[in-house]
Amino acid sequence: MAIELKNLTKRSENYSKWYNELVVKADLAEQADVRGCMVIKPYGYAIWEKMQQVLDGMFKETGVQNAYFPLLIPKSFLSREAEHVEGFAKECAVVTHYRLKTNETNDGVVVDPEAKLEEELIIRPTSETIIWNTYKNWIKSYRDLPVLCNQWCNVMRWEMRTRLFLRTSEFLWQEGHTAHATREEAEERTRQMIRIYADFAEKFMAVPVVVGVKSETERFAGALDTYTIEAMMQDGKALQSGTSHFLGQNFGKAFNVQFLNKENKPEYAWATSWGVSTRLMGALIMTHSDDNGLVLPPRLAPIQVVIIPIAKTGQLAAIDEKAMQIADNLRKLGISVKYDNADNKRPGFKFADYELKGVPVRLVLGARDLENGLVEVMRRDTLEKENVSLENIEQYVKDLLDDIQQNIYNKALNYRNSHVFECNNYDEFKEKIKDGGFFLCPWDGTEETEAKIKEETQATIRCIPFDADQENLGVDMVSGKPAKFRALVARAY
Amino acid sequence: MAIELKNLTKRSENYSKWYNELVVKADLAEQADVRGCMVIKPYGYAIWEKMQQVLDGMFKETGVQNAYFPLLIPKSFLSREAEHVEGFAKECAVVTHYRLKTNETNDGVVVDPEAKLEEELIIRPTSETIIWNTYKNWIKSYRDLPVLCNQWCNVMRWEMRTRLFLRTSEFLWQEGHTAHATREEAEERTRQMIRIYADFAEKFMAVPVVVGVKSETERFAGALDTYTIEAMMQDGKALQSGTSHFLGQNFGKAFNVQFLNKENKPEYAWATSWGVSTRLMGALIMTHSDDNGLVLPPRLAPIQVVIIPIAKTGQLAAIDEKAMQIADNLRKLGISVKYDNADNKRPGFKFADYELKGVPVRLVLGARDLENGLVEVMRRDTLEKENVSLENIEQYVKDLLDDIQQNIYNKALNYRNSHVFECNNYDEFKEKIKDGGFFLCPWDGTEETEAKIKEETQATIRCIPFDADQENLGVDMVSGKPAKFRALVARAY
Repeated sequence: MAIELKNLTKRSENYSKWYNELVVKADLAEQADVRGCMVIKPYGYAIWEKMQQVLDGMFKETGVQNAYFPLLIPKSFLSREAEHVEGFAKECAVVTHYRLKTNETNDGVVVDPEAKLEEELIIRPTSETIIWNTYKNWIKSYRDLPVLCNQWCNVMRWEMRTRLFLRTSEFLWQEGHTAHATREEAEERTRQMIRIYADFAEKFMAVPVVVGVKSETERFAGALDTYTIEAMMQDGKALQSGTSHFLGQNFGKAFNVQFLNKENKPEYAWATSWGVSTRLMGALIMTHSDDNGLVLPPRLAPIQVVIIPIAKTGQLAAIDEKAMQIADNLRKLGISVKYDNADNKRPGFKFADYELKGVPVRLVLGARDLENGLVEVMRRDTLEKENVSLENIEQYVKDLLDDIQQNIYNKALNYRNSHVFECNNYDEFKEKIKDGGFFLCPWDGTEETEAKIKEETQATIRCIPFDADQENLGVDMVSGKPAKFRALVARAY
Repeated sequence: MAIELKNLTKRSENYSKWYNELVVKADLAEQADVRGCMVIKPYGYAIWEKMQQVLDGMFKETGVQNAYFPLLIPKSFLSREAEHVEGFAKECAVVTHYRLKTNETNDGVVVDPEAKLEEELIIRPTSETIIWNTYKNWIKSYRDLPVLCNQWCNVMRWEMRTRLFLRTSEFLWQEGHTAHATREEAEERTRQMIRIYADFAEKFMAVPVVVGVKSETERFAGALDTYTIEAMMQDGKALQSGTSHFLGQNFGKAFNVQFLNKENKPEYAWATSWGVSTRLMGALIMTHSDDNGLVLPPRLAPIQVVIIPIAKTGQLAAIDEKAMQIADNLRKLGISVKYDNADNKRPGFKFADYELKGVPVRLVLGARDLENGLVEVMRRDTLEKENVSLENIEQYVKDLLDDIQQNIYNKALNYRNSHVFECNNYDEFKEKIKDGGFFLCPWDGTEETEAKIKEETQATIRCIPFDADQENLGVDMVSGKPAKFRALVARAY
């Protein structure tokens, strides 16, 4: 392991390779023997569980309830909403049969041609269609509204090029689907959920994000508006980390979800949907980690503190006692601790391993430290070591965890801010985009400009940021026509 | 709603119909517009979430970690383990294509024949194959063992006749898959997990269960031993509620999972798997509920206490204040409370609705009660009402919840125990089985006896109970040959 760790590619050498290696070496996930699918390993899944727990609580505080809708969607449902089918029907897993049978040579199984489905079923790429088909039976009157459902589930999109967490055929996510009596209420819910995602990213993941609205081209298939949070990775590329869609009455009409309003007149229900996925794992890893491995924000770290003893024969009992006492006290403060006194691994190996795994705080306890009433404390974010008095060590560690959470956020924010550029000149843009970064550029709002930028630079309009200055825009940097917006342009994952 | 409730079929009239209606009327689940699949509605899902939370904690206390493995399994994986493929390959959803395209008339989508998979993929009916194919890369040395993974996920088995929660094509479950260095350790883990399931059923669901081992015929496909918990429903039928399998080295051999033992010699790893599913929801509903609706054990009830005001105009403010104060105090004790002061529904409607939903305790607060320092308390299990002093009402409610939990368990246990019969005579058995019940019968251990009982009475050998008296068995009630076991025989869901 120590040798493998040494072999971790440096970010400066090959950022992409560094990421791929890190995900595997830190035991987060691996490619499955099924095309494009991943296995999320226990350590990676423990981080995802923490994310789920926090997000789930945030959703529920706003009145959202969890539910579960079917994995399989009848093919015809997809065609009901014209834009939606364009966006999602193309690359999806299709179930055509419901039985296998033993083959003729009796040494394997084949699809039973007799067991062909009348209508093919699609593994959900997203669930608007099946859910709105259900809502039709739930919503009859304005009194039945709003409906605020969320589900945690797996979805599948047949991706050609996949990367662990960032783009896989199957991934885990949550998808919220709400129905409202008025446009205003639905629009407000759309904004509320993108704010929750931004809050979660910044306060728990320690990932600063730009919040904004997508261009028409980049909208969710079937949406009237798509809000997004965009994070900057350490290579200056953007990672879309969560989206919230205002769907208008598109699905209400497609699935005939009508209710009687207070005036007893029928109206179509207004819809939103919003989701974040295991892609957040990619954002978390790429924002903070370094050439030694993962750097995890304390609030999402499965192990927040590791205690490692250094003991010669005969010394371990006293160290064990003290270490377990510290561990107990830390746990009482709500801190998750691992005391690793396994004797089949050397301390040096353990140090490297927990660095690789991004454990925020490491305590090393030796016999001499114990005599002197000291413990060596290392913080993973800066790798700084300090000898700290054992008296009141628990409060020290608690404060340190808060400090690390804040510090990695600040670090990411500084990095991001120093790579955001106002740019009004396309030639300058084409040159500077090679080094990555977020560019705030005047845009005429046309698809032509958007397409040209994408074709010539592989950069895309990520969003029109909520907080970008939309005054005195001047002219579109590509077309020279009057600009309508200041847009955030970047290369993206 | 009050009218719908009145229409709930009585258990004595048609138990099966009562169940089907109750699941839908209590807002737990409904049939989806996808063959054999269900929608789990928020109220039903909230109960499932509580089950998950408790079970997940119990698993983790024994060192189990959560992970996630792919939904889709290459067809050929199923054939690797000979018995397993017999059991599971037959009725499953088969993915054959990965793309749709617009049809010729441009008004729908069809499967793109160009996008045919080289090897078909199966939606997991259970994940032994894909997981052991993964473990092959994780397990090289005895130091890598044990591996203790669990996943919470959806699975699919193409069932012909489905019933909400009891048997659906798609269902939710957890599946634990462990790998061990020795047979003994794997066998002990198999037993440990069935004990955990029994504990959960009895202490949280308040459902008494018989723990035992399955006959060879009823074993999981690929297992050397299957342990089961069997619960008795109110119609005297058995519901298999959880199973734990000792898989020997079958999957280790099928997927070549070998490790070097302490003597540096290669050995195949030993396996277990164990699972419970949304079927537990069926067990919960059918064990306790009555002709007025659900009866939920307080420990799994999403709402443990509902407070309903009865107020004339002008009186509500004072009642609101007191009710919210009680609610707050109850929440401080960890009790989930709903205060329902909605003014668009009459109290009588609310009473019926919360009875239907099985809320364990109802407090009704009126203006006169308030003056007298009293509140009306109703317990859902017995429907008994009592006027209780507002002083110290919180502790009273807390104790009452404990009492209800215990009482419904006792009631279920008494019912079960009064329907367990020792039976040595086949004619007597054939007569008595018509009224349901569990029968402890001497069995010669042959498939012939088992098959004959099943054919002639639709009853099956549910298990050989761990605690059944296995002395002085006499002769098999069917064959007249010497009996080997005392088996539990019953009709089952």
